[in-house]
Amino acid sequence: MTAYDALLSHARETMALAQVMGRLHWDQETMMPRGAAAQRAEEIGALESVLHARRTDPRVSDWLAAAEAPDAAGAAQLRLIRREHARACKVPADLASAIARATSIAQGVWAEARRDEDVAAFLPHLQEVLRLRREEAAALGGDPYDALLDDYEPGATGADIAALFDRMRPRLKALRDRVLDAPAPEPLAGWYAKDAQLSLARDLAERFGYDFNRGRLDLAVHPFSSGGGADVRITTRVDPADPFNCLYSTIHEAGHATYEQSIDPAFALTPLGQGVSMGVHESQSRLYENQLGRSAAFCGWLFEAMEAAFGTVGAADARAFYAAVNRVGAGPIRTEADELHYNLHIMLRFDLERALIAGDLAPRDLEAAWNDRFAADFGVPVARPSDGVLQDVHWSVGLFGYFPTYALGNVYAGCLHAALGAALPDLDADLARGDPSAATGWLRAQVQRHGGLHEPRALIEQASGAAVSEAPLMEYLEAKFGALYWL
Amino acid sequence: MTAYDALLSHARETMALAQVMGRLHWDQETMMPRGAAAQRAEEIGALESVLHARRTDPRVSDWLAAAEAPDAAGAAQLRLIRREHARACKVPADLASAIARATSIAQGVWAEARRDEDVAAFLPHLQEVLRLRREEAAALGGDPYDALLDDYEPGATGADIAALFDRMRPRLKALRDRVLDAPAPEPLAGWYAKDAQLSLARDLAERFGYDFNRGRLDLAVHPFSSGGGADVRITTRVDPADPFNCLYSTIHEAGHATYEQSIDPAFALTPLGQGVSMGVHESQSRLYENQLGRSAAFCGWLFEAMEAAFGTVGAADARAFYAAVNRVGAGPIRTEADELHYNLHIMLRFDLERALIAGDLAPRDLEAAWNDRFAADFGVPVARPSDGVLQDVHWSVGLFGYFPTYALGNVYAGCLHAALGAALPDLDADLARGDPSAATGWLRAQVQRHGGLHEPRALIEQASGAAVSEAPLMEYLEAKFGALYWL
Repeated sequence: MTAYDALLSHARETMALAQVMGRLHWDQETMMPRGAAAQRAEEIGALESVLHARRTDPRVSDWLAAAEAPDAAGAAQLRLIRREHARACKVPADLASAIARATSIAQGVWAEARRDEDVAAFLPHLQEVLRLRREEAAALGGDPYDALLDDYEPGATGADIAALFDRMRPRLKALRDRVLDAPAPEPLAGWYAKDAQLSLARDLAERFGYDFNRGRLDLAVHPFSSGGGADVRITTRVDPADPFNCLYSTIHEAGHATYEQSIDPAFALTPLGQGVSMGVHESQSRLYENQLGRSAAFCGWLFEAMEAAFGTVGAADARAFYAAVNRVGAGPIRTEADELHYNLHIMLRFDLERALIAGDLAPRDLEAAWNDRFAADFGVPVARPSDGVLQDVHWSVGLFGYFPTYALGNVYAGCLHAALGAALPDLDADLARGDPSAATGWLRAQVQRHGGLHEPRALIEQASGAAVSEAPLMEYLEAKFGALYWL
Repeated sequence: MTAYDALLSHARETMALAQVMGRLHWDQETMMPRGAAAQRAEEIGALESVLHARRTDPRVSDWLAAAEAPDAAGAAQLRLIRREHARACKVPADLASAIARATSIAQGVWAEARRDEDVAAFLPHLQEVLRLRREEAAALGGDPYDALLDDYEPGATGADIAALFDRMRPRLKALRDRVLDAPAPEPLAGWYAKDAQLSLARDLAERFGYDFNRGRLDLAVHPFSSGGGADVRITTRVDPADPFNCLYSTIHEAGHATYEQSIDPAFALTPLGQGVSMGVHESQSRLYENQLGRSAAFCGWLFEAMEAAFGTVGAADARAFYAAVNRVGAGPIRTEADELHYNLHIMLRFDLERALIAGDLAPRDLEAAWNDRFAADFGVPVARPSDGVLQDVHWSVGLFGYFPTYALGNVYAGCLHAALGAALPDLDADLARGDPSAATGWLRAQVQRHGGLHEPRALIEQASGAAVSEAPLMEYLEAKFGALYWL
């Protein structure tokens, strides 16, 4: 066996165990009995120890030194293995295991604190998770925030993202202010049976290319996609008063999941066999959800489909329905935000978590900082912690450095959408028939099938044929919301 | 850290990973998308490699040589660790991993073959699983069947069980023949809504002590209980024409699950923290299901509960209902068999699998051997493979040597039931109120809380105050069915 083959064989078992870890997290969010939380933390800690030991196995260094890549894909495999190995070797095993245990516990506490509107109950766990992640960042070296960010978006830096956000923010706020000054469209008014919502959600997931033979749809507090290869699962939530919550979160998660399902099967259970970064992942889910799913053309079809599913939709016609789908409002919940406020939500979290990691903001001051910033950016106060600092699962599970990848995904989606429109002149006609398959097929060929073969930014530039920039996204938003609100 | 502490700490992580493996199997049977089977086999194979490496870790030998038990429970921990380590060291890692992979695949093939009535599709997988398990038995040494049996029922031998079955079989057949000569009671006739069945099943599980805060109930093709400590899950199946299938399989699995849930929490995630053998496990589940759940007293309560749940039960009165619950018939399905035929089902499987392991029966001749033996013992032909050789999951997942523990469990249940009746004079009055808690409390105190502290036979003899014998079971059966059919 060559060093390269030994390396890939070792990586394959590690990837299989990482899939098991993913399933444990899925189970925890969807199926696990409440009383099992402490035991689950031990299970996850034990598995994390195993994964960490494999990732830091000294034989990996030896194999890496001797390995010769057989081709370009092999070279990319080696690049990813080298990066993960170097990263893992910097983090002591005890710390990795402690993070796994602490976040497993903190996630359960967060869910209960969110239900009970009890920030104080969550605070000690947030402090502990933050302490451990800062310790990890110090072990990784360099700028602490960048060290964490690099795990989700290789090559990105906090400074670059701050500069990007600085360019976007005034333009976004100006557009948002003009929209809010215009007459607001009517929201949907009705009651939408849960079973019918879930049934339509399944239909939508399939239309957007999700393969239920290699996945499933369940309920969770916070919708997510999980797993890889032949087992990629999605979740949603159902609010009888707000069908868009279920339907668009399903399209969103189907975007993540079809990305994983569409990767070249030759890369299965190898380092190349997963989405290349969180930003690229989010570019797929957001493009499916917004540029395709919230387009005028697709909304025309969805209006009819909802009339069929629910009897009456609660909108006068397809145009009023499209306006309701894209209704702009300064609501408190990120995952329910319109396309304008969504990015402002991210910028808020990005600045706060950067301050937390830098040590410039203490966890006990986080709620006040959140509420102040929200009032400043959104013009309305935060009514309750579940609408504010407790709304997202991310920090409870240690995801610091993750939030900016959502807005980066929007920027990437803007780039890809511009190229997609040029490549597919019949796109609107397809969407008006409820058929996004040409668009998802283009994305599959240009982006998804490559898995981890190219670096994130290079992948987007290659697919879109232009340098990454916020301009296409901003132009898309200005055109879409201008047409909806005052043109 | 002392050698003993190091050993227990190591065992604790291994137990946590074994829990993860259990969850993977649960997921495979309840939640996994069909297309994920091949990937799941790799995941299970990788985790099995990890477990095998931990169980054969050379440090365990060193620690065992140096460890001093702090008390009697510590001595039992060392005994179990020593036994598992010695056993694991005899099985090559490649073989253990190959068995895990092959059985994961074979289980999926079995499920499809059973659905399609296609023995030929399953045959090559059965051959491969059998080949690997025979190879394992040879590596373990001694009598091949005993080597496999010992994993499920430490201390038992195929010869002892054959002798036990030889004593039981004529007495069972004589009783069965006399029952079948008597007028048969009416079966239940009706249609029982699935949701109402599942709702009543949940109620029954709770009455028998199952804690849903540390478990859950799902559907599966073949009902089972899975997991340990704070996460013990049960499954059932629902047939609208036959509510007893769902209700009694739930009581049965609740028996297994409450055993695991009732073990002294001080033993959690240690070798003592699980049921001591499959026979003792089955003694609990069968006693819950039969001696308690199918008693005249409890059936009186269940009749009323079913009237409330379904409107009408389809039996004239409680006495007719009790007779229907205990209706004896030579049906083909083990898990639906009455208390008399159940043991005959086991004896058939025991003899066939002993012949398979000994090499006296080839897999390709198994279906014919099954059908011949079934016709001889039950007096009716096998109509289709799913009623015969394909009905049980066990062999597909490599469980050779497991079946006899079911009948051993019945024998143990007979011993415990005799002692229980003497200890609880009000038992029938309790059961007539639908309250088995005094009985399950006695079993918890006498049997369940001890986990792996005592050897199986010693545990039963200590709890029942008498030597293990088939006599109490046979006397119970003769009295019960005599009263039902001709007294």
